[in-house]
Amino acid sequence: MTERKDNVLLIGMGAVGSIAAYALTCSGKSTVTCVVRSHYDLMVTKGLKIDSCDYGQKEGFKPDHVEKTAGEAMKKHGPFDYVVIAMKNIPDVSPIENIAAECYDEKTAFVLLQNGIWIDKPFFKRFPKAFLISGVSMIGAVLYTDTVKQMGPDFVTFGPFLNKNLPEELQIARCKRFVELYSNEHNDARYVFNVKETRWKKLVYNSAMNTTCAVTGVDSGRLDLFGGSDSLVIPAMKEVIAIAKADGVVIEDSIIPYMLKGGGGVYYPPSMLVDVRKGNYTEYRTIIANVVKIANYYKVPAPTLTILGNILHIMQMSTMEKKGRFVLPKERPPREDHYQIQFLD
Amino acid sequence: MTERKDNVLLIGMGAVGSIAAYALTCSGKSTVTCVVRSHYDLMVTKGLKIDSCDYGQKEGFKPDHVEKTAGEAMKKHGPFDYVVIAMKNIPDVSPIENIAAECYDEKTAFVLLQNGIWIDKPFFKRFPKAFLISGVSMIGAVLYTDTVKQMGPDFVTFGPFLNKNLPEELQIARCKRFVELYSNEHNDARYVFNVKETRWKKLVYNSAMNTTCAVTGVDSGRLDLFGGSDSLVIPAMKEVIAIAKADGVVIEDSIIPYMLKGGGGVYYPPSMLVDVRKGNYTEYRTIIANVVKIANYYKVPAPTLTILGNILHIMQMSTMEKKGRFVLPKERPPREDHYQIQFLD
Repeated sequence: MTERKDNVLLIGMGAVGSIAAYALTCSGKSTVTCVVRSHYDLMVTKGLKIDSCDYGQKEGFKPDHVEKTAGEAMKKHGPFDYVVIAMKNIPDVSPIENIAAECYDEKTAFVLLQNGIWIDKPFFKRFPKAFLISGVSMIGAVLYTDTVKQMGPDFVTFGPFLNKNLPEELQIARCKRFVELYSNEHNDARYVFNVKETRWKKLVYNSAMNTTCAVTGVDSGRLDLFGGSDSLVIPAMKEVIAIAKADGVVIEDSIIPYMLKGGGGVYYPPSMLVDVRKGNYTEYRTIIANVVKIANYYKVPAPTLTILGNILHIMQMSTMEKKGRFVLPKERPPREDHYQIQFLD
Repeated sequence: MTERKDNVLLIGMGAVGSIAAYALTCSGKSTVTCVVRSHYDLMVTKGLKIDSCDYGQKEGFKPDHVEKTAGEAMKKHGPFDYVVIAMKNIPDVSPIENIAAECYDEKTAFVLLQNGIWIDKPFFKRFPKAFLISGVSMIGAVLYTDTVKQMGPDFVTFGPFLNKNLPEELQIARCKRFVELYSNEHNDARYVFNVKETRWKKLVYNSAMNTTCAVTGVDSGRLDLFGGSDSLVIPAMKEVIAIAKADGVVIEDSIIPYMLKGGGGVYYPPSMLVDVRKGNYTEYRTIIANVVKIANYYKVPAPTLTILGNILHIMQMSTMEKKGRFVLPKERPPREDHYQIQFLD
């Protein structure tokens, strides 16, 4: 008897998305279609190199299908049981809801394998009847031109972003099924009901370490050797723990030394640093700005996170200017004019 | 009757130093020798272009003498009545005392035309009998390859860093004489006794705006348009004003809108941003780290300055690594090893 394969679409083949596509393919329980933007040609010709602490060295990885857009994928291979969104979450530039709309189906469960917090809010606002699954990856991995280098093991948790318009049991069952699809002998994928807790724990790393590396321009190893763990990251981590507590999630301080080693204890460049170095947008909105909003809501002091977030906002605006999203007046407008930037799209 | 010309040595031909050399030469009351490191060849051949809001367009500016080191200058043209040190103040890399030692004479008055605070302390420690003059420039100027572009007027104040081992009146007289040497019809050079006050006022700009531009990577105009004046610079300026107050200097909040326009109201890249863009060291020690030390001494809260200073420290360490001042182990040392960086010089 052949087990029915689930139909899975994966959008976004960055480091995390590529390892997820590989995991799903290895497990063999789903047909995997990938939407790839920047390295489509590579994926349909040579395929991807995987240099992984979990899977070893692999060449020529290709999923079952590769498409350029979610719309194309939907037309040719949809509808899907699961749509995994593993692209970066940059709501200030390209809301993921716009991409999800291209492959939306009421029977589809969307898996947001993404960083940050409050990422479910805009999704449910747009799709009130969606099945939504939270995926939190603790992997350490970086995508180079044609190779994904995975330094830290693929430890990932999935849980339901509960939708009160749908039966809870069904949501849990669909989430557990996805864990089955993802799991194989090489990785560690777990079902965890308390999505909020896993997200806050990941934020201890991301809001503090990822942001600080992005702002200072150094990897987590150098940051530590240069004194930044003590002067910046640990104070920021303590702020995240305090905000999480106000939000109902108790995290022990003992998580801090664990998180300081994140990325497998090498000179690891976290994702936002990689983004900054490539001149790309960062996920500062969901990784830190939303955290500061929650801190302000609960009136928890968060000076380090506030300042890091404000710096990252300026850096994002600068990236937007460089990418042509707006053009500033040739002469600097005086402050008293309260000039408003005009976005072009 | 020909007035005796004072013998002046100027060390450091960056933007501020070049305009100072030009001012001294224009005024015609001194013989000006300049020590130039990076563009010595240019200075002895074509000379410097000056594109100045004070002096207009000038080509081929050369002082009376140009030398490569302070030691050479001393041997050929010393001793000097005044030695103006206009190089950057980077005590963590190259203490200015080492350069001053090459041209030191008990009759010489040293003019520290430099940013920051507590710059007199290490100088007096090394030279307890030195005449020391504080120079605080509010100029907006940038040195490009062969051109100094001056956007903001050369408003500069000089006052004595009082040395209790020397008669106060003599110190004041020597300082006032220097103001005469510097002054001409195009600039605005003033004698101001309260050195501490002028330094704190300049720090309202430098500790807040200069640092924030360096960290965010954008000029002061963009910083303002992107929201950074409100989210970062003004909070930092308020901290500087509070620390100055604890240190006995009252600065009105009305300085803030004035300082936000610093650099002549154009898209102005402050000095530390220029340094970062060029991959050079920044003056973060004297501009912000010393300010944070003073804040801690008086127990004045300074979260914004503390965090900006900590970020700039990491950036400086990164620059040191890039310039080869140390080599990190190939494998990242675990945090529990408390690895100490070994500097090579």
